[in-house]
Amino acid sequence: MNNPLHNELKKEFQLERMILFSDAVFAIAITLLVIELKIPEISLNELTDHKLFESLVELLPRIIGFLVSFFLIGLYWTIHHRIFGFVVNYDQKLLWLNLFFLLAVVLMPFSSGFYSAYIFKLLKAPLIIYVTNVCFLSLMNMLLWRYISNPKHKLSEGIQPEFAQYFLTRAGIVTVGFFCMGLVYLFAPKFGVFVPLMIPVLMIIAKRRFILSSKQAQSV
Amino acid sequence: MNNPLHNELKKEFQLERMILFSDAVFAIAITLLVIELKIPEISLNELTDHKLFESLVELLPRIIGFLVSFFLIGLYWTIHHRIFGFVVNYDQKLLWLNLFFLLAVVLMPFSSGFYSAYIFKLLKAPLIIYVTNVCFLSLMNMLLWRYISNPKHKLSEGIQPEFAQYFLTRAGIVTVGFFCMGLVYLFAPKFGVFVPLMIPVLMIIAKRRFILSSKQAQSV
Amino acid sequence: MNNPLHNELKKEFQLERMILFSDAVFAIAITLLVIELKIPEISLNELTDHKLFESLVELLPRIIGFLVSFFLIGLYWTIHHRIFGFVVNYDQKLLWLNLFFLLAVVLMPFSSGFYSAYIFKLLKAPLIIYVTNVCFLSLMNMLLWRYISNPKHKLSEGIQPEFAQYFLTRAGIVTVGFFCMGLVYLFAPKFGVFVPLMIPVLMIIAKRRFILSSKQAQSV
Amino acid sequence: MNNPLHNELKKEFQLERMILFSDAVFAIAITLLVIELKIPEISLNELTDHKLFESLVELLPRIIGFLVSFFLIGLYWTIHHRIFGFVVNYDQKLLWLNLFFLLAVVLMPFSSGFYSAYIFKLLKAPLIIYVTNVCFLSLMNMLLWRYISNPKHKLSEGIQPEFAQYFLTRAGIVTVGFFCMGLVYLFAPKFGVFVPLMIPVLMIIAKRRFILSSKQAQSV
Repeated sequence: MNNPLHNELKKEFQLERMILFSDAVFAIAITLLVIELKIPEISLNELTDHKLFESLVELLPRIIGFLVSFFLIGLYWTIHHRIFGFVVNYDQKLLWLNLFFLLAVVLMPFSSGFYSAYIFKLLKAPLIIYVTNVCFLSLMNMLLWRYISNPKHKLSEGIQPEFAQYFLTRAGIVTVGFFCMGLVYLFAPKFGVFVPLMIPVLMIIAKRRFILSSKQAQSV
Repeated sequence: MNNPLHNELKKEFQLERMILFSDAVFAIAITLLVIELKIPEISLNELTDHKLFESLVELLPRIIGFLVSFFLIGLYWTIHHRIFGFVVNYDQKLLWLNLFFLLAVVLMPFSSGFYSAYIFKLLKAPLIIYVTNVCFLSLMNMLLWRYISNPKHKLSEGIQPEFAQYFLTRAGIVTVGFFCMGLVYLFAPKFGVFVPLMIPVLMIIAKRRFILSSKQAQSV
Repeated sequence: MNNPLHNELKKEFQLERMILFSDAVFAIAITLLVIELKIPEISLNELTDHKLFESLVELLPRIIGFLVSFFLIGLYWTIHHRIFGFVVNYDQKLLWLNLFFLLAVVLMPFSSGFYSAYIFKLLKAPLIIYVTNVCFLSLMNMLLWRYISNPKHKLSEGIQPEFAQYFLTRAGIVTVGFFCMGLVYLFAPKFGVFVPLMIPVLMIIAKRRFILSSKQAQSV
Repeated sequence: MNNPLHNELKKEFQLERMILFSDAVFAIAITLLVIELKIPEISLNELTDHKLFESLVELLPRIIGFLVSFFLIGLYWTIHHRIFGFVVNYDQKLLWLNLFFLLAVVLMPFSSGFYSAYIFKLLKAPLIIYVTNVCFLSLMNMLLWRYISNPKHKLSEGIQPEFAQYFLTRAGIVTVGFFCMGLVYLFAPKFGVFVPLMIPVLMIIAKRRFILSSKQAQSV
């Protein structure tokens, strides 16, 4: 503990380690998705192109589920990448908040696989599982950001208060939006699927308010 | 070997390589757990919400097992993260001690899967497998820390002797606690499950002694 | 945001993070391939060397498929490694282009597994799936390179315009070559398999033109 | 290409990228091994401790195979770690030699799984597969080391010629030793298994010669 420069580098590596560990979890979760795309097994006697195309059509819901999950995990990876671009320090609570966030990521292959396997009927179980997972992921994203952007914890650098608020609002809109979708779906499935459409509308309103507040902050 | 600064950087990278390799193993072990959560297969003719919820209830022990293992591996990752925050050098023995530690981590998905599949009866085999794995993990943690914190090996920096002792005691309490649990369980299963409750009690005692000894060290 | 050196280092780490995340995806995709090589299960009563060698012969198409995919993913890893050797900055669009590129990589185990399982007959479905995947991978490689090498985006350093053009042409040849192969195969399967042979011929022509244009650029 | 310090850092990162990619492949291969340890499935009606212990005994050859492969991959990771501790540069050929080395690593879970599933009879197929894999791994290790330690290629720093020769001899002994084992096993299985015992004997002889030649080099 006698060399301050060395300690600074060590602290930075410890932070990088947490981030690269998260990346590895993201990378595995996003690649494991492909395991659900099982190669159709057809006995050699009745193997024809027609049979193979039929088996691919049967695989279609899983392929769609794969793509949706790939981009959802990819999206949250870019968000994680963006958030941690501000982080300059860490503490035990951040390690654990991050682990809970990763838990939600790791569960995505299961819940989206479950959802895409039974997507074609208006069933409740698959959608509830899936929406719960997305809500949990979005909620952890919110808590992580609130903890990091709070200047009291001295974990981040260069976050303007208006931006912190804007980012928090966005995460909140996703969480609440999917939560409402789940609730409505339970009682009126046909309406539930339209609830997420309100998310982009709210996002635009939040963006306008952010641009306004940034301008006010700059003019002051 | 002519440039001392370059060699210093190379040594540091070699150490980082060992740590990032460990992180990758942790990340894969923690993400592979989700593979055990197999999506229930129900034929389309008898597919109802009732059937799906039933299949989820059947999956419940596996979900609990998944969560327990996720947090156990997550916990040991934070411990590994903390321990290696002190390390500034490496040798062949450290590489191998670390590999044995990782062996215990890699076995967790198997032993916790085994345990959670047969948790509901007071059977001996699943618990013994699980307790053996946790004991082994905790023991390797102890040996790793003892080797790293020993000033003779010149592997670490900034560890105060009282802290080294305290951390060693904590790891020892977990090892012995789970070992006793296994022993008691063999002869009196109903009592065995309560043995781990003594771990937090002993932890508090160890913490008090540590605070006391730190104060004495500071006053000297 | 007050320390410019710190911000520069942070930006560099953010870039490295994207690259190491890509590496993890490559590494998992290349290693997951081996899961398709299932160990043949033979009941102990009829277990003989003859039976085992027979089962290995049956596994042969999968082994060939494994090797082809291993080297394809390996090849694209070296290309990714080479491309990002020029990159010094990132933006949101680069993150997403890279994610689409990784999507094509992640799909390789599926499409090559599908292809190698049904390689022995002149069927259309497996080849179309496989060719589509390779075209998609090659196309993303092209788009990624075009975006990175464009000096307007200020993402790269040290790319000479002739080299940028040459690399783009190469990626284009692979994309178009495999696309033509797929088209010809649909109508005349026996000819289709020879179409990729034109790729190395076009590559040599592209290389000559590149050497010529580099000389002209140097003499100016 | 105007900033030499920046280019030096970039080159170093490109080298680190190759190494960390290798680590990820090692980490996945070593962790995937545990997937072969399938949790025994016993119907709940006949579930007893006796049944479970029996199923664990049946799993024993796989557990042994898992441990052997874990330590073999772990051993080659430490060798890779040691070799690349000398490397200061890279070229395309090194990337590809390393990829071939990783191919041998990635195949280990398959060949050792195959071997450990049918270990108990004096069958030829499993052992030949396994020995071929170990020979291939050891041979690639040899070629990698010969390429890196050759001063002409300017890839490494600080390797004394005697040490380069010694390390090459060691890798050669392992390659030839396992190759002979395979050959002898084909014609006289009962003798074949004793051939690897000559490896440690030859290792000791190689070590003595290395110590001798180092002393001579120092005295000159």
